[in-house]
Amino acid sequence: MLVLITYDVQTYTENGKKRLRKVAKKCEEYGVRVQNSVFECIVDSAQLKQLEIALEEIIDSSVDSLRYYRLGKNHETKVKHIGAKPAIKVDKPLIF
Amino acid sequence: MLVLITYDVQTYTENGKKRLRKVAKKCEEYGVRVQNSVFECIVDSAQLKQLEIALEEIIDSSVDSLRYYRLGKNHETKVKHIGAKPAIKVDKPLIF
Repeated sequence: MLVLITYDVQTYTENGKKRLRKVAKKCEEYGVRVQNSVFECIVDSAQLKQLEIALEEIIDSSVDSLRYYRLGKNHETKVKHIGAKPAIKVDKPLIF
Repeated sequence: MLVLITYDVQTYTENGKKRLRKVAKKCEEYGVRVQNSVFECIVDSAQLKQLEIALEEIIDSSVDSLRYYRLGKNHETKVKHIGAKPAIKVDKPLIF
């Protein structure tokens, strides 16, 4: 299924910047960056759980925010992109 | 239906900053800001079309990026939030 992950990480501090880099790096293991703070991941439930656990270990939940949107399997018709950075095909096999 | 709108607006220039403010302001007319560049909107097809047209008039499509995700009607189970800024209930009536 396609899962969209969006995040806001507070980057006022060096630690915050480090968290932001770590969140992005972790998401890159599971999917494709489509905007600065938006990743699209093709994952099964087990992979999603793994990713959730990893991200929750990285963020500071008192100031950072993570959102997950499950778009299911027939997601091609549900996504529309306008402007720069055209959508990257996310159905290619994931490399871990 | 729930439509998620995510955007990246290039803010190196004053014009870019102005575009960013305008995009956020326009999205606020239709939905709720859940993260810095993420809005959740409960709209019908006609409203979505209106919003799309308005946003495309604001952005510079050579550098800015807009993405729309249709989450359909049974969206409550599809969204998960972790950390700061708890999700705001988006099912309240929209005020135009």
